[in-house]
Amino acid sequence: MAKITIMGSGGWGTAVAIMLAENGHQVTLWSYFPEESENLKQSHENIPFLPGVKIPESVRFTSDIGVCADTDLVIMASPSHTIRNVARQMAPSIKKGQRILNISKGLEENTYLTLSQVLRSELPESEIAVMSGPSHAEEVSRRVPTTNVVAAESEATANLIQDIMMNPNFRVYTNPDVLGVELGGALKNVIALCAGILDGMGLGDNTKAALMTRGIVEMSRLGVAMGAKAETFNGLSGIGDLIVTCTSMHSRNRRAGILIGQGKTLQQAQDEVKMVVEGVKTCRAAYALSRKLHVEMPIVQEAYKVLFEGMKAEEAVLHLMERDKKHETEKAFLKLV
Amino acid sequence: MAKITIMGSGGWGTAVAIMLAENGHQVTLWSYFPEESENLKQSHENIPFLPGVKIPESVRFTSDIGVCADTDLVIMASPSHTIRNVARQMAPSIKKGQRILNISKGLEENTYLTLSQVLRSELPESEIAVMSGPSHAEEVSRRVPTTNVVAAESEATANLIQDIMMNPNFRVYTNPDVLGVELGGALKNVIALCAGILDGMGLGDNTKAALMTRGIVEMSRLGVAMGAKAETFNGLSGIGDLIVTCTSMHSRNRRAGILIGQGKTLQQAQDEVKMVVEGVKTCRAAYALSRKLHVEMPIVQEAYKVLFEGMKAEEAVLHLMERDKKHETEKAFLKLV
Repeated sequence: MAKITIMGSGGWGTAVAIMLAENGHQVTLWSYFPEESENLKQSHENIPFLPGVKIPESVRFTSDIGVCADTDLVIMASPSHTIRNVARQMAPSIKKGQRILNISKGLEENTYLTLSQVLRSELPESEIAVMSGPSHAEEVSRRVPTTNVVAAESEATANLIQDIMMNPNFRVYTNPDVLGVELGGALKNVIALCAGILDGMGLGDNTKAALMTRGIVEMSRLGVAMGAKAETFNGLSGIGDLIVTCTSMHSRNRRAGILIGQGKTLQQAQDEVKMVVEGVKTCRAAYALSRKLHVEMPIVQEAYKVLFEGMKAEEAVLHLMERDKKHETEKAFLKLV
Repeated sequence: MAKITIMGSGGWGTAVAIMLAENGHQVTLWSYFPEESENLKQSHENIPFLPGVKIPESVRFTSDIGVCADTDLVIMASPSHTIRNVARQMAPSIKKGQRILNISKGLEENTYLTLSQVLRSELPESEIAVMSGPSHAEEVSRRVPTTNVVAAESEATANLIQDIMMNPNFRVYTNPDVLGVELGGALKNVIALCAGILDGMGLGDNTKAALMTRGIVEMSRLGVAMGAKAETFNGLSGIGDLIVTCTSMHSRNRRAGILIGQGKTLQQAQDEVKMVVEGVKTCRAAYALSRKLHVEMPIVQEAYKVLFEGMKAEEAVLHLMERDKKHETEKAFLKLV
């Protein structure tokens, strides 16, 4: 039995709290807002994010940041734009070598740092791992069979987290490529937004499969330029997460994309979806990174023009279809030359 | 303008005939049955397979096998189990160096040869290429943006076919890995059948994304053992085709899987779907190949038990979720040891 604190009581933090309590661990769920914590204490249910799912009695709730001290594992589950601030407040309580697992997804605005990089800068002496993969919180909280991947620089840390997490409904693989695992979850939202646009335009299954397959190629190309491993993008945190995000109505990125594909502006779509559309920020980040690192990302480039420069989605699709003739892989036919 | 004969007037052969005629080529569509050819001639529509889609006036129809002589490109589009017989009948008309493009998908029963290997054995002096990718015929015939990959041993042949095929709605990439491109299209049906089973059981998006991601890992592992390149399985003919097949109701493999997941036997499911369920044959083939080549294919192994040995699908899912703890990639953490 491990002592675990989860920092952030949104849908995913709560789903993981439920699962780890059912795995037999001693779990504390921290909320930023005291009233959120109070509500959870009273109802043992996360009514805004996971209505109808009972939180086990053994889970404790708090809004005291000091709760992250002296635990076997701290799990970061607050929204990506809050991670730096939460980590900074945690710093006085975190000892050297503290194991911290980030399960939140995204890139920091303006710096384009990954969330483990943000954590490393605020908590430099901790041992940081990340977990990602195709895992809607709603499904994990209902024990739907799900797989994820844990990446850490040390194999011992990855194995420890694998042991803590795994159960017959949640299968965890390990991977040493922390950056690659994080980038998959962060970058996928721009492709999910594009998948929504294609759906909104009434295009077909062929088109969407092409977008996803060539989308992961672009994500992988950017990842490799940043220092990640290409094969990670072909795993659960890459194509796996991309598949689930592009094909499910749970994704608000996809829902916003559908509205844009039907002819609404970005502003109208965002107003209608009423929540942060992560893919919009990610598109800016990926576009800036691709220019800085000289990485060819034709889908991201066209998405940028549609979202921010008023280009019609039909024109973007045509641009992508009419690009120069290409080999499928960078190395194609080299052997035969 | 190229002179092209398409051998096989099913849905895919007809869709490609329409597209190539619209690309400005001189196309002849060959049918095995003279009455099929007559029907096409009369109506300029493939009523059983592509109802409502007009075939251009320039397309010619015939059931004379000799029509494959003296063309720039012969395209093989007959069902996989008929390819050897059709090729054998074509042999007297095929000259040395004749370019032949196979667009049919599958493995030969009992021999487990790929279709290009079958073609090579019957037409040893021809130059053989293959085309595959996420491309429902219904969508291609309606000009839905679609991508595919052409593989040939010679770059010149791949480039020539790319030139013949490409248009603003059909984008073609080239790849030198003929075997890998073929195996993707042949093996995907067993995973599509499994995806249907999960849907029939009422499992979630997380589970299906996991199946597809780990499914392509198994397909790739088998492919590499047979001599293909791993990266091909991460492209359009691998994960791309798998995505489209697992997420679309066009696939009868998926439809049969849904019935099995709902508790029907294989026989009941096949009777209800009323058409050949390719994934059933493919499961036998992949299972036999994995044993022969000592390749670990846990999903195929469990599918085999469900289809042919009466195991319950629930038990198969549990087996897969409860396997030993694994690294995600074969090389994980090796660098750090």
